[in-house]
Amino acid sequence: MAAPERISGVLSPVVTPFEGNLRPDPDSLVQHCRWLLSQNVGLAVFGTNSEANSLSVEEKISLLDHLADAGIEPSRLMPGTGHCALTDTVKLTTHAVNLGCAGVLMLPPFYYKEVSDEGLFASFAEVIERVGSDELRIYLYHIPPIAHVGISPDLVERLASHYPQTVVGIKDSSGDWNNTNALLQLGLEDFRVFAGSEGFLLQNMRSGGAGCVSATANVNPAAIHQLYADWQSPSADALQQELDQIRGIVAKYPMIPALKAIVADFTRDPRWAIVRPPLVALTDDQKSALLKELRQSNFDMSALID
Amino acid sequence: MAAPERISGVLSPVVTPFEGNLRPDPDSLVQHCRWLLSQNVGLAVFGTNSEANSLSVEEKISLLDHLADAGIEPSRLMPGTGHCALTDTVKLTTHAVNLGCAGVLMLPPFYYKEVSDEGLFASFAEVIERVGSDELRIYLYHIPPIAHVGISPDLVERLASHYPQTVVGIKDSSGDWNNTNALLQLGLEDFRVFAGSEGFLLQNMRSGGAGCVSATANVNPAAIHQLYADWQSPSADALQQELDQIRGIVAKYPMIPALKAIVADFTRDPRWAIVRPPLVALTDDQKSALLKELRQSNFDMSALID
Repeated sequence: MAAPERISGVLSPVVTPFEGNLRPDPDSLVQHCRWLLSQNVGLAVFGTNSEANSLSVEEKISLLDHLADAGIEPSRLMPGTGHCALTDTVKLTTHAVNLGCAGVLMLPPFYYKEVSDEGLFASFAEVIERVGSDELRIYLYHIPPIAHVGISPDLVERLASHYPQTVVGIKDSSGDWNNTNALLQLGLEDFRVFAGSEGFLLQNMRSGGAGCVSATANVNPAAIHQLYADWQSPSADALQQELDQIRGIVAKYPMIPALKAIVADFTRDPRWAIVRPPLVALTDDQKSALLKELRQSNFDMSALID
Repeated sequence: MAAPERISGVLSPVVTPFEGNLRPDPDSLVQHCRWLLSQNVGLAVFGTNSEANSLSVEEKISLLDHLADAGIEPSRLMPGTGHCALTDTVKLTTHAVNLGCAGVLMLPPFYYKEVSDEGLFASFAEVIERVGSDELRIYLYHIPPIAHVGISPDLVERLASHYPQTVVGIKDSSGDWNNTNALLQLGLEDFRVFAGSEGFLLQNMRSGGAGCVSATANVNPAAIHQLYADWQSPSADALQQELDQIRGIVAKYPMIPALKAIVADFTRDPRWAIVRPPLVALTDDQKSALLKELRQSNFDMSALID
């Protein structure tokens, strides 16, 4: 097995489809993944917007196996594997590495708060040592608005310096450009900094970033990838503005239920709207208003049809 | 199997011992549990202070089985069973019920933030329906400083009214007496309100509460139980002050490492000081200072010897 290439581009935290009994629906997941790949978007399955934290390790392993069995190219996979429990993180990360995934997106353990950088370093180090594979590529996942446990630039530098072939990037979902910029300014060799949404995509590319991992790439992948590909073109600022407009419409609603309502609409499969508790699906009124506003915008719904 | 009695009294979120390889040490756990029971303290194993959120479901099931096999009375067990993932919560809760545990202490799913009461109600309801047992007794676990997802008095009322034989109590670790009092004022029949520390024990008992579930009961169980037993005696206020003094000393340090340092000292087993990342053990200086201050206080270290 060749060592995985470092990842760049646009990735989507792939929304996870459920059956009526709240069981994950692996076939619909494969279908959505194939469509995202056809739009040049990579697969950050088991991200925050995948409701990954509402799934057990076993459910995630089963889905990952299903994706691999269906022929989804592991070089396009960056599954989220960070859990509260060390042993859970090691288990899912090991499985992802054994399947040949290009990388994993790793949350810090997020239950205990106000933990020290020393403790977080020990946590990541313990995972790396236990997985014990030259093929492991970790993209750190900094999302303080939700995890409430962050990964400071100091800690990033320490981890990447200590494990330069393993800790190779970060997704910054702080929503704070200054933090993303601080990560870019660390000057770590070939370290891949992903913006946590397409809202910072152009700024990130202009500053030496690697792309973005964005929830809305589930529904607007082609346009986001276009900006990634054309960031040096004269039309880049206009493209960014168009992306911002679409994102602004979706962001008026709870993100995950909104994304699933859109996917349910364009796949004509209402089961896509199902979310696991504690999330709640959009009401019919919310869904109608969201879809109406998207149709009235420059959002190309026709691109969504398989 | 007789329906479990509702729980009252003092319980300890039992600290979890690890081997040098960070594996849980079931025999040391049994030993500590037996000692706590001998001090009239019940066993809220897998609480926050048990580092339960750093353990996988499988590790907790294995420990619970070990406790049962060792003859620990299930009527004294209130294991924490709430996880981020619905399926994890269902799995561990079902296991606890099948072992005959008197109740479970249930965190809400705590990864996704700013979730609605509607979503949290659906989450608890889904767990209850899936476990599907008349023997299930849930004590809700409200700990907003750490979980960052709370359980409002409105939600408590809604759950207890909808499932009066199942949702039978709450541990309030908000640190806010007004919230505890609001729970007591709901007027739910035979609903057991536990203070989240012995700091509110006397106030809670005087207001109709059921006791407390307190971290420091790991090291100061007899005195805390004494206040629970004697809360109506003239000496109650003085007892409360003594408890507060001891807690104040321990609380100068990170709670879990401090508790484990004390247990390591009194059991003369240094392995007790081991914590799982992201936590960090006390430094030697911290440990010495903590133990010195405890010895100079009215804390009866001799009571700690088995």
